[in-house]
Amino acid sequence: MSSAKPKPVAGDNLPLFTPNQRLELEGFSRKARPNGSSSTLAELLRMVEEAQVDDEMPSTPSSHVVQMTSVASSSISAPAAYPFVLSFKNLTYSVNIPRKLSFSSLLGHKKSGNGAGSPGLAGTKVLLNDISGEAREGEIMAVLGASGSGKSTLIDALADRISKESLGGAITLNGEILESRLLKVISAYVMQDDLLFPMLTVEETLMFSAEFRLPRSLSRSRKKARVQALIDQLGLRNAAGTVIGDEGHRGVSGGERRRVSIGIDIIHDPIILFLDEPTSGLDSTSAFMVVKVLQRIAQSGSIVVMSIHQPSYRIMSLLDRLIFLSHGNTVFNGSPANLPKFFAEFGHPIPENENRTEFALDLIRELEETPGGTKSMVEFNKSWEAKQQSLSLQNRNVTWTGPKPSLKDAISASVSRGKLVSGGSSGDSSQVVSVPTFANPSWMEMLVISKRSLINSRRMPELFGIRFGAVMVTGIILATMFRHLDNSPKGVQERLGFFAFAMSTTFYTCAEAIPVFLQERYIFMRETAYNAYRRSSYVLAHAIISLPSLVILSLAFAATTFWPVGLAGGFSGFMFFFYAVLAAFWAGSSFVTFLSGVVSHVMLGFTIVVAILAYFLLFSGFFISRDRIPPYWIWFHYLSLVKYPYESVLQNEFDDPAKCFVRGVQMFDNTPLSVVPEALKLKLLKNMGGTLGMNLTGSTCVTTGVDILQTQGITDINKWNCLWITIAWGFFFRVLFYFTLLYGSKNKRS
Amino acid sequence: MSSAKPKPVAGDNLPLFTPNQRLELEGFSRKARPNGSSSTLAELLRMVEEAQVDDEMPSTPSSHVVQMTSVASSSISAPAAYPFVLSFKNLTYSVNIPRKLSFSSLLGHKKSGNGAGSPGLAGTKVLLNDISGEAREGEIMAVLGASGSGKSTLIDALADRISKESLGGAITLNGEILESRLLKVISAYVMQDDLLFPMLTVEETLMFSAEFRLPRSLSRSRKKARVQALIDQLGLRNAAGTVIGDEGHRGVSGGERRRVSIGIDIIHDPIILFLDEPTSGLDSTSAFMVVKVLQRIAQSGSIVVMSIHQPSYRIMSLLDRLIFLSHGNTVFNGSPANLPKFFAEFGHPIPENENRTEFALDLIRELEETPGGTKSMVEFNKSWEAKQQSLSLQNRNVTWTGPKPSLKDAISASVSRGKLVSGGSSGDSSQVVSVPTFANPSWMEMLVISKRSLINSRRMPELFGIRFGAVMVTGIILATMFRHLDNSPKGVQERLGFFAFAMSTTFYTCAEAIPVFLQERYIFMRETAYNAYRRSSYVLAHAIISLPSLVILSLAFAATTFWPVGLAGGFSGFMFFFYAVLAAFWAGSSFVTFLSGVVSHVMLGFTIVVAILAYFLLFSGFFISRDRIPPYWIWFHYLSLVKYPYESVLQNEFDDPAKCFVRGVQMFDNTPLSVVPEALKLKLLKNMGGTLGMNLTGSTCVTTGVDILQTQGITDINKWNCLWITIAWGFFFRVLFYFTLLYGSKNKRS
Repeated sequence: MSSAKPKPVAGDNLPLFTPNQRLELEGFSRKARPNGSSSTLAELLRMVEEAQVDDEMPSTPSSHVVQMTSVASSSISAPAAYPFVLSFKNLTYSVNIPRKLSFSSLLGHKKSGNGAGSPGLAGTKVLLNDISGEAREGEIMAVLGASGSGKSTLIDALADRISKESLGGAITLNGEILESRLLKVISAYVMQDDLLFPMLTVEETLMFSAEFRLPRSLSRSRKKARVQALIDQLGLRNAAGTVIGDEGHRGVSGGERRRVSIGIDIIHDPIILFLDEPTSGLDSTSAFMVVKVLQRIAQSGSIVVMSIHQPSYRIMSLLDRLIFLSHGNTVFNGSPANLPKFFAEFGHPIPENENRTEFALDLIRELEETPGGTKSMVEFNKSWEAKQQSLSLQNRNVTWTGPKPSLKDAISASVSRGKLVSGGSSGDSSQVVSVPTFANPSWMEMLVISKRSLINSRRMPELFGIRFGAVMVTGIILATMFRHLDNSPKGVQERLGFFAFAMSTTFYTCAEAIPVFLQERYIFMRETAYNAYRRSSYVLAHAIISLPSLVILSLAFAATTFWPVGLAGGFSGFMFFFYAVLAAFWAGSSFVTFLSGVVSHVMLGFTIVVAILAYFLLFSGFFISRDRIPPYWIWFHYLSLVKYPYESVLQNEFDDPAKCFVRGVQMFDNTPLSVVPEALKLKLLKNMGGTLGMNLTGSTCVTTGVDILQTQGITDINKWNCLWITIAWGFFFRVLFYFTLLYGSKNKRS
Repeated sequence: MSSAKPKPVAGDNLPLFTPNQRLELEGFSRKARPNGSSSTLAELLRMVEEAQVDDEMPSTPSSHVVQMTSVASSSISAPAAYPFVLSFKNLTYSVNIPRKLSFSSLLGHKKSGNGAGSPGLAGTKVLLNDISGEAREGEIMAVLGASGSGKSTLIDALADRISKESLGGAITLNGEILESRLLKVISAYVMQDDLLFPMLTVEETLMFSAEFRLPRSLSRSRKKARVQALIDQLGLRNAAGTVIGDEGHRGVSGGERRRVSIGIDIIHDPIILFLDEPTSGLDSTSAFMVVKVLQRIAQSGSIVVMSIHQPSYRIMSLLDRLIFLSHGNTVFNGSPANLPKFFAEFGHPIPENENRTEFALDLIRELEETPGGTKSMVEFNKSWEAKQQSLSLQNRNVTWTGPKPSLKDAISASVSRGKLVSGGSSGDSSQVVSVPTFANPSWMEMLVISKRSLINSRRMPELFGIRFGAVMVTGIILATMFRHLDNSPKGVQERLGFFAFAMSTTFYTCAEAIPVFLQERYIFMRETAYNAYRRSSYVLAHAIISLPSLVILSLAFAATTFWPVGLAGGFSGFMFFFYAVLAAFWAGSSFVTFLSGVVSHVMLGFTIVVAILAYFLLFSGFFISRDRIPPYWIWFHYLSLVKYPYESVLQNEFDDPAKCFVRGVQMFDNTPLSVVPEALKLKLLKNMGGTLGMNLTGSTCVTTGVDILQTQGITDINKWNCLWITIAWGFFFRVLFYFTLLYGSKNKRS
């Protein structure tokens, strides 16, 4: 095919490689080919690190490799270029169909094409039925089929994303059973969706991936070199400085974004790479570029296994092995070149000019709709495969004449050739490949997560801007609405209203962060799936980063309202008010963060937050004071997040025993006697004093702040304890958030 | 191609047509071929209707057509089978680029492939540059190109979706300039998205389209027959009874859904059909079925013009004319058969086995990235087209030897052959084609819209269920929280709180309807784009349908809270409370409906509703009574939607002058004297009575409800007026909603 097109194939906007770069890259991956090693991965990595003489010297990727190789080869004993072969035999996987589905089919609802397996078996559905095959180093194996044929399931099975108990059959690498832990180290899985931070550049995105995934033992300059090499390998040189972008921000093209997604997952240069429909949603040229990059990755010594919906003619020329699935069964397994022969022998020759995969998929689809289904094709393929195997057995092992090395040796050899830049930072040499639980210590993870978060928010100032605006608008409305409240009975009631509204507002404005949290959650799930960092580091970093913005919001709100409304306590009163608002913001944002870990839909999350906060307000003690709340609801009063900051600011306002709120005749203000002339009121007061045996004049204080607190039932917890409890709620929800992340991000099918 | 595949090509699940059906359909469209008419469309339609002898008799589509033809032909004078030809010459269209884009390119941001035209021209971007071509009856013309090449723009230009002022060049039908009004009657435009009600069946969906678009003069059985014929034509016979479906409900397949979308727009059997990427998002077989249906539509006497991203080999065999665009320029214009010759002469022969369109699009893409761009190809195509034209001129008009009829006659003839089932219900015979503003009278539209809405909500009971649940939960919480409020000063304060919370709740729960409204809005926009009904009918029907559910919600809420809380007024008090809640629901839902017409994003809409309602509550008079609100905010108090229902229920509660809320010694309840012994309180009371010159005992009423209303500043509007004002707000927002629909749904580019 490529011979038919002498023009250089261009990337999204640029030639993929200059001839010079291509040479360097080939050197990077090939030079060490004939050498191998029996050293452990950890040992190798340490040696590689020690060989790095000058950390500060800017160096090209190829020079790194030369150094790596020269050191590694000095300790090499066994030959190692035996190619990796991933084999899978008789893979079988079925799931129970939930009752709901069978019920809807009882109602006569039409079954769409993606029902798979034998419908006779009540309750179970066979997703994979006796699938065998193999994928080899240097090659791309593609799984094809209609949606629902089992493509993704097969990829998941191979990538160890289906629990071993449910999956029948065997998966081996070089004839040895693949352990889950080992596979996790030497492989990568690229999901269909591009989950990237929109405001990071391509280079930054890959660099963060390197910082998360590559071991601490690797120096920063070495990581940088790896990222630069990867950028060239992915053909992203011209886009390296461009941000990823989203609807609101112009960024890289769809094909470039997909290649960045792949780059993130192959930062450690895995031996096996799985991809679920890497070309979906891309135009033909971008899709071709992606598969071209995959070919280059395969040729650098990897096994590439991918599913693809409908490869174009040009992409077909890059694929080495094809498996066509239909309802979980193999209907073809072989090289693209064998397709015409296969279909001719099957009795459906491919017409001269037609696209082969298109023809094959259409034929399979048509057979699926016949009463017999694709059974005839499945059977034919079995016999055809057997025939092919007996033919190829004679040519086998032509490429490899020496004794077959163990998997351990093969992996070590591969590492010495520059593969698997990741690996254990622990020096445990008793394990061949020490499985790295995490590449970095906790504090480093937090630092990197925080750094990334800061870059993100600095480049999207509008997110904080909107929140700040909302808080300021509410602050100004409250400040003008409750301007200069007096110390009268009415003023007291209005003060209570102000505090209830102000404390609720802080919670409500936190809800605006839900979309951001939800967007991040998917990235978090992808990153923790391959142990990029500890969940605890993420939770801590998330909490720490949120603090500065909360301080600014609290300060702005407190300063806007405290003096205009005329709250009590002077500067120390203001400081406490500020602390209380900050604590409310902290508790509210922790609560919303926790909710965003539980609820996955923005609208649902927002509705729940608003509803819960409305109930919190109802039970806070503002609408009904604590001593009047029915006993069966009092538990909710203590659960109400609004109660604690509300009570703390009320106490801050009213706890001055010297301050008077109802003085002399003001005590008649909210009674029918308020219309009585002033002189008569004074007379009344004097009479009352006489009855009570005390001197009541127009300036006698009748109600102090403490009396008001008593009336409102705010007597159980003092103001500082209220503050601490509010802060503790915040921590409590952060801990809950941690647990939702821990148990909510399983990514294996059962 | 089809000869290479002898097997019958199957639809999504069924053979498209039985041989018998095929014959009937061909009769439907072809039988009357050689006849024509010079009568007006309106006249013809009337005759056709009169000829309908037996409305009740179930009849096949073909029998209808025979009747139609026999009658129509009696008044026919001129011959008419002259084929329609849609020609467009030198179409040119450019837009101004907003400054922001050029700014970002200044910053060195990479330009992605969809920048079109000459970048030298500062500020303008040429989307179409001198495009010419023609599309003929019976054929499919396809526009191809990368995204951003101008495909959709060209379709929009031809479909009169770009204002005449901005578009350069000429579009003619049979050589006569096409008027917008005429084009709207004889054409249809199918959008890329399937905007369908998920819970209607295929048959119902098409039937509603028939009821909206086909003239009232056509009997219901005739409309049914049209729908049945269409179901067969679209190959949807087996899916006719299946609901469309969505994420939550199992429905028809993607290909079937797309065909339903097409069916909705061609219910009136248009002469010209425009489609924007009708195959996008479909798998190859479904895409093929869709284009196969389009071919059948073309062959029934229509011109089909569509854009397509990357047609498969099989689809290519169905296309009659291709236009390849690159950055708004034509790079190829001709039949698919000419592609190899064209590219061979251009110097880039298509390799033997390669997909032709794939090759062409890849080559165009590669040229686009060279410095010269596709200029050479554009130039080559110009000369090549000229050559082809001179060649074909000799063969021209071979198919038509008689005198060319006028466009008017041609359309009349087409109508007599069964085309354009739509048309004017007005009998104005002075116009050749009376443009029907609307097919049905207003009451009929409202009836049909209401019917559809009722079917929808009956099939999605969960939507109402969630709202009902939310209202009931809040009702029960309020009922238990504020259980048996007493008539004491504290009880009064709690009553105020209850009413404020209750009235806010009704508004908040209305916000839950936003997603439903937003979903419907897109369908509304599509339907009003082709004048399916008046916007006013939609607004009225929407309001009327919402009423029953609001009555149920109000009744449930009022009944749950009125007696447990112990509100005043007995049965008539309850009835007024119910009215007030209903009025609040009505105003709230009108407000939310209006907002959903302004805001297009669910999350944004919800945030705005919550924020505005919070401010409404703040200014309602509950937090600060009217007489204490600062004068610069009093306007907002009167704007507050919560004020009116809140004041009305407060008056309903407190307007009984015989009812007492503070009696005797209770007047000391909220004062420091509350701790004084009862006997001393009585003594105080007696003393005070003496001072005031009245008899004050332990049972004397000190504060009546009227006093409380006075204290709360609720003196300006009586309770019934508050109720009417609330209802009036509801109507006001419905009117605003109407205007947003009127001005918000322009669908022409400028």
